[in-house]
Amino acid sequence: VIAVDANGADLGPGEVAAGAALAAERGARVLLFGLAADIDAALAEIGAASHGVEVVDAPVSIAKSADPARAARSAPEASIVQAARAVAEGRADAFVCAGGTGAALAAGLFNIRRAQGVHRPALALPLPSPVTGGTVTLLDVGASVEARREHLVQFAFLGAALTSSVFGVQRPRVALLSNGQERERGSAVVVEAHAELLQRAEGAPFDFLGNVEGGDVLAGAVDVVVTDGFTGNVALKLIEGVSATLLGAVRQAASSSLMSRAGGALLLPSLRRLRSEIDPEAQGGAYLLGLRALGVVPHGRFGRRGFAEAILRASRGVEQQLTACTHSSLAAAGALRRFQGPAPPAASEPDASLRAQ
Amino acid sequence: VIAVDANGADLGPGEVAAGAALAAERGARVLLFGLAADIDAALAEIGAASHGVEVVDAPVSIAKSADPARAARSAPEASIVQAARAVAEGRADAFVCAGGTGAALAAGLFNIRRAQGVHRPALALPLPSPVTGGTVTLLDVGASVEARREHLVQFAFLGAALTSSVFGVQRPRVALLSNGQERERGSAVVVEAHAELLQRAEGAPFDFLGNVEGGDVLAGAVDVVVTDGFTGNVALKLIEGVSATLLGAVRQAASSSLMSRAGGALLLPSLRRLRSEIDPEAQGGAYLLGLRALGVVPHGRFGRRGFAEAILRASRGVEQQLTACTHSSLAAAGALRRFQGPAPPAASEPDASLRAQ
Repeated sequence: VIAVDANGADLGPGEVAAGAALAAERGARVLLFGLAADIDAALAEIGAASHGVEVVDAPVSIAKSADPARAARSAPEASIVQAARAVAEGRADAFVCAGGTGAALAAGLFNIRRAQGVHRPALALPLPSPVTGGTVTLLDVGASVEARREHLVQFAFLGAALTSSVFGVQRPRVALLSNGQERERGSAVVVEAHAELLQRAEGAPFDFLGNVEGGDVLAGAVDVVVTDGFTGNVALKLIEGVSATLLGAVRQAASSSLMSRAGGALLLPSLRRLRSEIDPEAQGGAYLLGLRALGVVPHGRFGRRGFAEAILRASRGVEQQLTACTHSSLAAAGALRRFQGPAPPAASEPDASLRAQ
Repeated sequence: VIAVDANGADLGPGEVAAGAALAAERGARVLLFGLAADIDAALAEIGAASHGVEVVDAPVSIAKSADPARAARSAPEASIVQAARAVAEGRADAFVCAGGTGAALAAGLFNIRRAQGVHRPALALPLPSPVTGGTVTLLDVGASVEARREHLVQFAFLGAALTSSVFGVQRPRVALLSNGQERERGSAVVVEAHAELLQRAEGAPFDFLGNVEGGDVLAGAVDVVVTDGFTGNVALKLIEGVSATLLGAVRQAASSSLMSRAGGALLLPSLRRLRSEIDPEAQGGAYLLGLRALGVVPHGRFGRRGFAEAILRASRGVEQQLTACTHSSLAAAGALRRFQGPAPPAASEPDASLRAQ
């Protein structure tokens, strides 16, 4: 069962509801939190059978809150908080948040809590490479803003475990995103993380390839690219933006002359296929890793198809036991944070950086 | 007269020499430092008239040095150090370095020195937008790794003055690169720089638009995008890499079927035009701003055409009095660092971060 927060999507809760209905048709079971009136109207309009989708009226949204950490604490009735609580209480196995990464993270941290020994959750986004047809997973794309050495090291293990579990890559090739390939290149934190990952390379369930530069991200030579949430978010949006800009320019070029128009028309099916290959909506969004249960965060501007993919991604992640896999990978490598006692501290206090999400 | 370091280019000093000859044909005067045997052979091979290009035999290269700051100090005979010294001593007006940003920066800092009141030089790269046909200048793309608030603020003024002088934009639209548009989004340094730029907005010779995200960089709504050298370098290489990857995928799509091949052939002239529009080599490379004279840093993998453009870019920059313009813009805005005495301190000591360039 996937708990879904329908509030916060750019196209409204009805679009998320339509996505939930599509996912339910393909076998998912959804607990949907949002404005019931909008949701019911949307479901009625598309004539969706309601089996597989249970609606909980939760009109309060904190998706656009400037201080999601505070909002998640002070609004227990908010849809995303209710969705996270459903997971914490065992009524659902994972959650999907249609809008507001900050709200998803805050609600997850307060209710589902950080997995024991994990410093910080990370948003991991699998990106299709238009050249190789493979996938490269970029993390963190924005769960935190800044990262310390130990965070980047854990992200490497989290990303590698995700890639093994979801994409079946036996020994993922993992690299740090930097401004040069040499080990001494990069911010102080990147250089430190590089050194620690080299030290840990022997026992790691992945191959650490060192640094990659921006131009290498989509080139197909790595499976996991590790970076802080600020750089990762900028990088992700650059990839999406440059792709859209260039495909637009190709389209423009294809209408610049009579000959080009004829050529463009003949090329259209291939170009459509390319566009759909790299369409972020077809992917379903980012995995939120590092909590005690899985989260999936689609883009707020997605349509129903994207939300359906997000719900199915969460559903498959539960079957793949993604949370257990990522955690046992960290544990086996001795990369978990050490505790004084048996109870994980700080799980009830999200990072200060959360305020800025 | 432009002092050019021919060492460090991927294709060797001969390729830079050929570029210098091309630039000289278009009116530039070049003082060329590098391995004279290679340079003379290259010039003889292309049958270039040698007027306009004076060759100085300087076989020592520090372009690939792991510690360019130390190398620039300990190897006064290195080609880039000689080129920078030629500028410092008035034998040349600007310099071009064909390989090794770190070496160019170190040699510039030691010999030409930082402009008075400038915290740190920045590499500013004008990027063509394939949609608008306009240009957006990204800085810093890698002169430093990390930046403080006051650095980002100065970069905004430097980038705006460059855009006004070189591209004739009356009031450039300047923005900070961040992981969200709201003013509270971003790393601590970005949030602080945002606040200071808002304070300074009234008297500034540019419009400060706040934050932009990665997807907005090439969208045409801003003229100058300010960021730290780490993020800027990653961003630049992502833009180049994603562009190349996508155009490659379009080419691949255009050979996937008989129909596509026919379409691709008809579309070819338009696609070629698009590719040349966004070709980094046609631009000539990045401006190194913040020294007492102008530097231009082309990409080490450029061919002769790219080096010729770099030399012409430096030559035009001298005519445009770029160094004076950028400096007086900072001075007029009161954005220069304040000094105790008349002599700028620290100009002989480059930042520790330089070691990692």
